[in-house]
Amino acid sequence: MTPLDPYLAAQTSLGNRLLRVGWGLVYQIFFRFSPRPAHAWRAALLRCFGATLGRNCHVYAGAKIWAPWNLHCEDAVGIADGVVIYNPATVYLGSHAVISQDAYLCGASHDYNDPQFPMTSAPIHIGQYAWICARATVCSGVRVADGAVLALGGIATKDLAAWTVYGGIPAKPIKKRIQP
Amino acid sequence: MTPLDPYLAAQTSLGNRLLRVGWGLVYQIFFRFSPRPAHAWRAALLRCFGATLGRNCHVYAGAKIWAPWNLHCEDAVGIADGVVIYNPATVYLGSHAVISQDAYLCGASHDYNDPQFPMTSAPIHIGQYAWICARATVCSGVRVADGAVLALGGIATKDLAAWTVYGGIPAKPIKKRIQP
Amino acid sequence: MTPLDPYLAAQTSLGNRLLRVGWGLVYQIFFRFSPRPAHAWRAALLRCFGATLGRNCHVYAGAKIWAPWNLHCEDAVGIADGVVIYNPATVYLGSHAVISQDAYLCGASHDYNDPQFPMTSAPIHIGQYAWICARATVCSGVRVADGAVLALGGIATKDLAAWTVYGGIPAKPIKKRIQP
Repeated sequence: MTPLDPYLAAQTSLGNRLLRVGWGLVYQIFFRFSPRPAHAWRAALLRCFGATLGRNCHVYAGAKIWAPWNLHCEDAVGIADGVVIYNPATVYLGSHAVISQDAYLCGASHDYNDPQFPMTSAPIHIGQYAWICARATVCSGVRVADGAVLALGGIATKDLAAWTVYGGIPAKPIKKRIQP
Repeated sequence: MTPLDPYLAAQTSLGNRLLRVGWGLVYQIFFRFSPRPAHAWRAALLRCFGATLGRNCHVYAGAKIWAPWNLHCEDAVGIADGVVIYNPATVYLGSHAVISQDAYLCGASHDYNDPQFPMTSAPIHIGQYAWICARATVCSGVRVADGAVLALGGIATKDLAAWTVYGGIPAKPIKKRIQP
Repeated sequence: MTPLDPYLAAQTSLGNRLLRVGWGLVYQIFFRFSPRPAHAWRAALLRCFGATLGRNCHVYAGAKIWAPWNLHCEDAVGIADGVVIYNPATVYLGSHAVISQDAYLCGASHDYNDPQFPMTSAPIHIGQYAWICARATVCSGVRVADGAVLALGGIATKDLAAWTVYGGIPAKPIKKRIQP
C-alpha cells in the first residue's frame, strides 16, 4: 500500500530495503564492534555483501557503508571511523585513496524542482592517492581526480582536478600538491 | 547549591532537566532502536512527551529531539537519522518539510558579550516544503520560508526567502527553486 | 611485521596504541554512560590516564578524548557532548574555555607533499574564555587567543586573535567581542 503522497513513498525497492536490513544486522553484530586491526575480517564481511575490495584495504569499524554491493575499492584504500558512504549509486575508490574521519561521500540527492521530490543518485569516483580530509563531503556525481586533496570540512560539488588541493564550500582550488 | 561561577551554573530549570532525563530514558529504550518503518510508534512516543505532530510524519530512529514538548510538526514532515533538533525554544516544521541526515536545528546560543555568558534561545520556523539538506544548520531565531532549500553543509544565520536555494557559510542565495 | 607500503604502516607507536586500547575500554565501560552531572567522576578517570585538569571542569559523557595524557585544562573548562579532541600532540584549554557540541579539535594531519604521506601533529592552544561553537573545528598547530569566538561550523586554519569573533571556512574575523 504505497502512500499517495510522493513525499512519503519509499525511494528504494523492497529488495533493496530487505538487503539493507540484512546488512544492517550483520554490521551491528559483526562489523561495528570488531577489533581495530581486524581489517581482513571487515573486508570479508563487505565482500559477502557484494563489495569489490582490492588487497590491504583498511575499512575501520566505525565506517558506515550504506550498500556494500555498490562499493568498489582498489588496493590499500583507507576508510576511517565515522566515514559515511551513502551509495545508492556506485562509489569507486582508487588505490591508496584516503577517506578521513567523519567524511561523507553523499551519492544521492533529491530533484527539488520536481513536485514529486524524487530521490536522485549518481556515482562518485575518487582517484588514486586522493585524500578526502576529515568532515569533508563529496556530492553525488562528482569525480575526484588522482591525488586531489579536499581539505577539512570542504564540500566538493563539482569535479576536482588531479594533484590539486581544494577547500571551502563549495570547494575551490587552493594550491598544487607535489606529484611524486 | 548553585556554583558562584556563572560558567558552571545550570542553564535550564530543574524541572526541565528532570523531564529531559525521563525523555532520555524513553528515547534510549523505546525510540532509538525501534524498527525503521515504525513511524507511528515514534510519533506516539513524541506525543507522550508533548510534541504536536500532524499526520504521517516520518521521524527516524536516529533523530535526536532535545525537548519533544517544544516540537510542532504539520503533516508529512520528514526528520532523518542523525538530525539534531536542539530546541530549548519552539521548533516549528511546516507540512512536507524535509530535514536530511545529520542536519542541525540549533535553537540556542550564548550571549558572549555578557560576562555571565548566559544561554539564549529563540524559535526556529521551517516552512512547508522547505528542505534542510544533509549536515546543514539552521541557527536560533531563523525563519526558513516555504519551499526554501538550504544546501548540504550550509549554515543559515538569517532568514531564508521562499522557493530559493541557499548554500555556504553563512548561507547565501544561489538560485530560484521552481514553485509548483 | 610492518607493511612496506607507507600508507598501511601504523602512524603511532605500539605503546601508544596499547594505551589507547586501555583508555578505550575504560571510556566505554565507565565514562560514556556515566550520569550527566558526574563531572568529578569523569575528571578522575581522565586524570588516571594522565590528563591535567583544573577545578570544576565539565567534560560531558559524550565527549571523545583521543589521548587524555595530552590534555591540559585549567579551571572551569567545558567540553560538550559530541566534541572530538584528537590530540596526538598536546591540547591546552585555558580557564573558562567552552567547547560546544560536536566541535572538533583536530591536532593531526598528513604531509600530502611527502610520498610517504606521514602523519603530522602539532599542539592546539585555546585561550581563557574562548568559545569554540558547535560543529566548529580548530586545526593542528592553531593558537586561539583569550576570549576569541569561533562561530558555528567555522574552521580555524590559522591563529585567532583575542576577543574577536570569527566564522566561515577558513575562519575570518567578523566583529569584536566585548572584553569584560
